Amino acid sequence: MNIKEYLAEKKQVVEEALAAYMLVEKEPLIQHIKAMRYSLFAGGKRVRPILAIAAAEALQVSHPSLLPIACALECIHTYSLIHDDLPAMDNDDLRRGKPTSHMVFGEAEAILAGDGLLSLAFDLMAHPEVAVHLSPAENLRIIGLVARAIGPLGMVGGQSLDLAAEGRQISLDQLQFIHRCKTGALITASVQAGAIFAGADAPRFEALTTYGEKIGLAFQIVDDLLDVVGSTEELGKTAGADLNRQKATYPSFLGVEKTRELARDAVAAAVEALNDFDHRADPLRELAHYIYSRNR
Amino acid sequence: MNIKEYLAEKKQVVEEALAAYMLVEKEPLIQHIKAMRYSLFAGGKRVRPILAIAAAEALQVSHPSLLPIACALECIHTYSLIHDDLPAMDNDDLRRGKPTSHMVFGEAEAILAGDGLLSLAFDLMAHPEVAVHLSPAENLRIIGLVARAIGPLGMVGGQSLDLAAEGRQISLDQLQFIHRCKTGALITASVQAGAIFAGADAPRFEALTTYGEKIGLAFQIVDDLLDVVGSTEELGKTAGADLNRQKATYPSFLGVEKTRELARDAVAAAVEALNDFDHRADPLRELAHYIYSRNR
Repeated sequence: MNIKEYLAEKKQVVEEALAAYMLVEKEPLIQHIKAMRYSLFAGGKRVRPILAIAAAEALQVSHPSLLPIACALECIHTYSLIHDDLPAMDNDDLRRGKPTSHMVFGEAEAILAGDGLLSLAFDLMAHPEVAVHLSPAENLRIIGLVARAIGPLGMVGGQSLDLAAEGRQISLDQLQFIHRCKTGALITASVQAGAIFAGADAPRFEALTTYGEKIGLAFQIVDDLLDVVGSTEELGKTAGADLNRQKATYPSFLGVEKTRELARDAVAAAVEALNDFDHRADPLRELAHYIYSRNR
Repeated sequence: MNIKEYLAEKKQVVEEALAAYMLVEKEPLIQHIKAMRYSLFAGGKRVRPILAIAAAEALQVSHPSLLPIACALECIHTYSLIHDDLPAMDNDDLRRGKPTSHMVFGEAEAILAGDGLLSLAFDLMAHPEVAVHLSPAENLRIIGLVARAIGPLGMVGGQSLDLAAEGRQISLDQLQFIHRCKTGALITASVQAGAIFAGADAPRFEALTTYGEKIGLAFQIVDDLLDVVGSTEELGKTAGADLNRQKATYPSFLGVEKTRELARDAVAAAVEALNDFDHRADPLRELAHYIYSRNR
């Protein structure tokens, strides 16, 4: 299989669905909805929705009623980027090569765009379209699982810890814990959502969970690497930003070579978790390798 | 019945449940969770959870498995206050007589506390405890309804419009539309959540929806009145703040007397919507009067 073609094809499916679910730009409500659309269509790779779709496909389920959930995951990811970029948080001016939301719409609308996307995500996850394939009980299970992953002990907790760690000495263990919350939890939940949607039994659910955890780890390590070795152009955000803020990163603990090894190990562990799956899990396997290959 | 006793009793039930659902203060995650607790236990009247409980009771259903949903409504309300108070938004230093979240914890943690409460709310609404009484399908219906009420075309939309209207001329119709989104939508959704929980048929659901809309309107009108006639002490926030920000209010359009009349009319319409309910709807009726009586 060709992973680039697969990603391009799924990306298009996701973006068409996103555009359809996104609200009509009603005149009186225009500003914050413009801000939501601006960030939602600012060139994301749609990794989380594609992970959900690929996880379901690995279990032989391919159904359009997964799309509201897949799109919800992208809304959540986008909300987290908008809020993380705010002046009070990471204070980033650029994201994916474009001015961040608050640079374009002001802080108030950026906060509201994030709040709006987070609310919309749960609206989408409870969308009647989902019920075409999924039982209400399993639908609820996905909502609970995603809510927990992004909540105070998940993604929001990770961002809080990340801010608290700035300019302070932390251990490699603490760094891993921060990342597991901040980026790992939503990536894992995305894979799990696809697994539940496809009716995974317990062993397969566990295997896919491990897969999600390992690629979540790989994803963050590669991000750290790109921040050191990549240019601003490749990265779409200010390179060396983490260094400038004196943030702990994997390379700052381990150096570039050891960090690359760690990323390779995580990818290998992710692929290994899929040992009992047939060729229908190839997109997941290739996705794991693809994440590593971002590290040029 | 004695509405003050009723409110005090239900408030206690809600606050005990809130305390139980609120996360243990794990050491590494402590800061944003402290911020969540600070605002959640800063003296709210728990109007929205009590509305949900009273609506269910009006339909003869009283069951503790409504509590996760009731508490979720309070989490959402609290998140909206924290974000609205931010410097980039309404820039308020005081709320319920206490320093606002960002004054105590800083802007970043205040944003995260809001994000955390919003995520936690959906976690709570999908809580397994709810399933003790409610079918998964109806549970999903509540989640979708609440998500829509607080989303880009609901509460978040209202706040965006409210900010856009500052210092500009708007009509009374526009003011009402803003309030219907900003405060009315969540109040109505709270009543509706209780109605669905109690298995309301279509006519009763409609009646309770009308009740919710009318008390939502009354609530906002009285809030505007208090801002003009109340002292900072009574209000728990800086009196005359809306005036200072040149915000449109009901009294600025209609004067104090006409505004009082409008509030009385809304309360009467709310009570009238409950005509087909028996004495079990008395708490809802009394609640409507109680809202008006806040206007001393």
